[in-house]
Amino acid sequence: MSPDPAAHHDPLDLEAFRRNAHALVDWVTDYLAGLEARPVREPVEPGDVRAKLPDRAPELAEPFDEVLADLDRVVVPGLAHWQHPGWFAFFPAQSSPPAVLGELAAAGIGVQGMLWSTSPAATEIESHVLDWLVDLLGVPQSWKTTASGGGVLQAGASTATHTAMVVARERCRERAGVTAEQMVAYTSNQAHSSLEKGARLTGFGHIRLLDVDSDLAARPEGLLEVITADRESGLTPAFVGSNVGTTGTAAVDPVRALGEIARREQMWHHVDAAYGGSAMICEEFRHHHDGLDLVDSYTFNPHKWLATNLECSVMWVADRRPLIDTLSVVPPYLRNPASESGQVIDYRDWHAPLGRPFRALKLWFVLRSFGAEGLRRMIRNHTAWARTLADRVDAHPRLERIAPVHFALVSLVHRDGDEATDSLAAAINSDGRFYVTASEVDGRRFLRVSVGSTWTTQHHVDALWEFIADHA
Amino acid sequence: MSPDPAAHHDPLDLEAFRRNAHALVDWVTDYLAGLEARPVREPVEPGDVRAKLPDRAPELAEPFDEVLADLDRVVVPGLAHWQHPGWFAFFPAQSSPPAVLGELAAAGIGVQGMLWSTSPAATEIESHVLDWLVDLLGVPQSWKTTASGGGVLQAGASTATHTAMVVARERCRERAGVTAEQMVAYTSNQAHSSLEKGARLTGFGHIRLLDVDSDLAARPEGLLEVITADRESGLTPAFVGSNVGTTGTAAVDPVRALGEIARREQMWHHVDAAYGGSAMICEEFRHHHDGLDLVDSYTFNPHKWLATNLECSVMWVADRRPLIDTLSVVPPYLRNPASESGQVIDYRDWHAPLGRPFRALKLWFVLRSFGAEGLRRMIRNHTAWARTLADRVDAHPRLERIAPVHFALVSLVHRDGDEATDSLAAAINSDGRFYVTASEVDGRRFLRVSVGSTWTTQHHVDALWEFIADHA
Repeated sequence: MSPDPAAHHDPLDLEAFRRNAHALVDWVTDYLAGLEARPVREPVEPGDVRAKLPDRAPELAEPFDEVLADLDRVVVPGLAHWQHPGWFAFFPAQSSPPAVLGELAAAGIGVQGMLWSTSPAATEIESHVLDWLVDLLGVPQSWKTTASGGGVLQAGASTATHTAMVVARERCRERAGVTAEQMVAYTSNQAHSSLEKGARLTGFGHIRLLDVDSDLAARPEGLLEVITADRESGLTPAFVGSNVGTTGTAAVDPVRALGEIARREQMWHHVDAAYGGSAMICEEFRHHHDGLDLVDSYTFNPHKWLATNLECSVMWVADRRPLIDTLSVVPPYLRNPASESGQVIDYRDWHAPLGRPFRALKLWFVLRSFGAEGLRRMIRNHTAWARTLADRVDAHPRLERIAPVHFALVSLVHRDGDEATDSLAAAINSDGRFYVTASEVDGRRFLRVSVGSTWTTQHHVDALWEFIADHA
Repeated sequence: MSPDPAAHHDPLDLEAFRRNAHALVDWVTDYLAGLEARPVREPVEPGDVRAKLPDRAPELAEPFDEVLADLDRVVVPGLAHWQHPGWFAFFPAQSSPPAVLGELAAAGIGVQGMLWSTSPAATEIESHVLDWLVDLLGVPQSWKTTASGGGVLQAGASTATHTAMVVARERCRERAGVTAEQMVAYTSNQAHSSLEKGARLTGFGHIRLLDVDSDLAARPEGLLEVITADRESGLTPAFVGSNVGTTGTAAVDPVRALGEIARREQMWHHVDAAYGGSAMICEEFRHHHDGLDLVDSYTFNPHKWLATNLECSVMWVADRRPLIDTLSVVPPYLRNPASESGQVIDYRDWHAPLGRPFRALKLWFVLRSFGAEGLRRMIRNHTAWARTLADRVDAHPRLERIAPVHFALVSLVHRDGDEATDSLAAAINSDGRFYVTASEVDGRRFLRVSVGSTWTTQHHVDALWEFIADHA
């Protein structure tokens, strides 16, 4: 016996790390390979997980074998498996093998890219890959870092939207000389909750959730009416959020019409394409993008539907100056010759945080490991399977589809009403093979089937349909 | 030849992933083992990295071998190596083998813990580990999730501080009925830039950067004077930020005295211990924590000095209700029985973003793999080596220390003045073995030596001292 048992488990022993990491790689591979055999959501009650943990942190180092064993004993039985092929809930939080490799590489390298000079590769690969995506998604060339705009990776779309709102507030303050309390933000009543939360964080005095048309898209006429009323009340329009793929039903707002109003009213125009944006890698979806020349900022999440794991949200601005002017604070310890030369991008000035991990690495790994064609194939599969499902819903006597299928989300109800819809959702979710989200639109319960897990195949969508048809 | 060359590189082939991940594990291990032989900062000019990348994203999948080779060809020559043992710049962005393992596990599992129900283990392990840290750091028991307060992992201290400011703003608005433009935030003129940036994001009309005493700590009398003047101008004090380890010189503000003023003025009192907080795992530093009973929110970064890689910032609140009241927005698609039961924590209501990765996993891995004793040993080593360095500076005729060494940061100048100090910094940074930050306080240039890389040993600090002594 050694007098210091912890000495056996030196956390900095690199050869031990090598062995442990190899063991963990096998564990992760087996976890992913075995997912389909597990229920999508493990049965777990509040407190179950904590009950398995000791009351106090260990004083001495534990061997990694014990930590690894606890992934099976504590963690896995407490998960909802977002990577399960039967995951049809919310929107997907995609991951993929190349993304996991990218995350491992970034964690291993462990750099912090707040400034170009604190790791030039982190900044330049990010700028470059986001410029690649400008071409891949067909968004305006002016959004490239080599032009007047530029892309930056944010943690998520909520963060990107909030950041855009802060810039909108400052621009409105400068232009109109009014306080945030007098400013109004506008978006669809189908917009993601992050629009409302962002407005609250920003301190906008008012947010207007606009009426939608029968396709659940915001009505430009509605926006005009509300603006007129707000102006008459002495308020100042400051921000419009257009949505390309709302969270409820993946509805698409008329970006151009809203953008024209934004331009006329001197509002900041932001597009939340958190979900829908990834589809634009396929040209056939780009009619939903009409009007991007009238957009100030845009966000979409590769961590939803472009095979890149959390957190990875692209934010583009048409003009980077207002963003940087709003967010740049330069204390003496961050001054350096490269920044002062004006030749480099310092991403700390493009978002709220200062420090930042090397997020672009995983996106670079994904784009290279799938190739653009591989990603298009995935998007086309998901959308085709969703359309087939929608056709089946349409042909079923007791089911009704309540929204267009622009992407890979199918929204349906049971014709017998809310209770039947909720029962159907409950039946699907108790089966173990599938997970869907029940939600509500216009006071009516509905069931969202979001096709988009990295590991979903046509077979899984067919099996879900069989279950739905049997139980409807 | 296959007609579809991409078919050879299926990004979803799990056995290929296993092989690739094993290869990457070896690459990461070798990268870390080889760091000392490289310059801390690779020589690189703006544009060098991008020049190595193709203009457009690949259409077809590339084999992982090529991606891996580009880590050596493109990435490594473009890095500043934050994990290098000679990294004495800024504050450290620590990583460690157990943290890298935790990041790999989290990426592999790929869950999104916005709600308890979307992966109970992600929420409960986070709550539990942050409760462990309440005991390990000796902060108030009421900050536990099992009491009235609670901990949440934020991306960084900037984000935590900004979140606290938003809560402060809303509380002040409710209490005093004034607009954000009429509110004032107060902190030391030595505070991190995130305080100023956070105030800007929040929309506070005013931020006052308080004068400091000879130890560079904020003066409570100064705060009282400024508040009196602000009240006379019709403004409303809303927020005070105390700093435990400022970025410039790791100064410590009088938390109790500032907290008493905050209490009297009904301001929110936030502590930014981003750097200093980790040291509190050792009891001998806790005199810097006097007054935590007068604190509303507190943040510290395990990703700075507790061996956990980016992003991992702990935020505690003494009372979780104002935080949740400010940030909770519940759309229909997020409603679920567990949340409505009130028995669970939904961390989406504890921060600005909605979606969130499983960050607690790496912190859990670190605490178990080091054990509390292992982390204390690391902190005690770093602080002892820094004190030795400080003694040597004090004994050197041409050097002068300009701030107390509360933790592991030594701040010094050359007695010949700014130019000599900057020359010394430039000499150190051009050697290749070391990297320090030159900064400025009170109009005077100084040199920061921050001891804290995971891989730094006494030998590296000695070598740095020899270099300094030789060149001073």
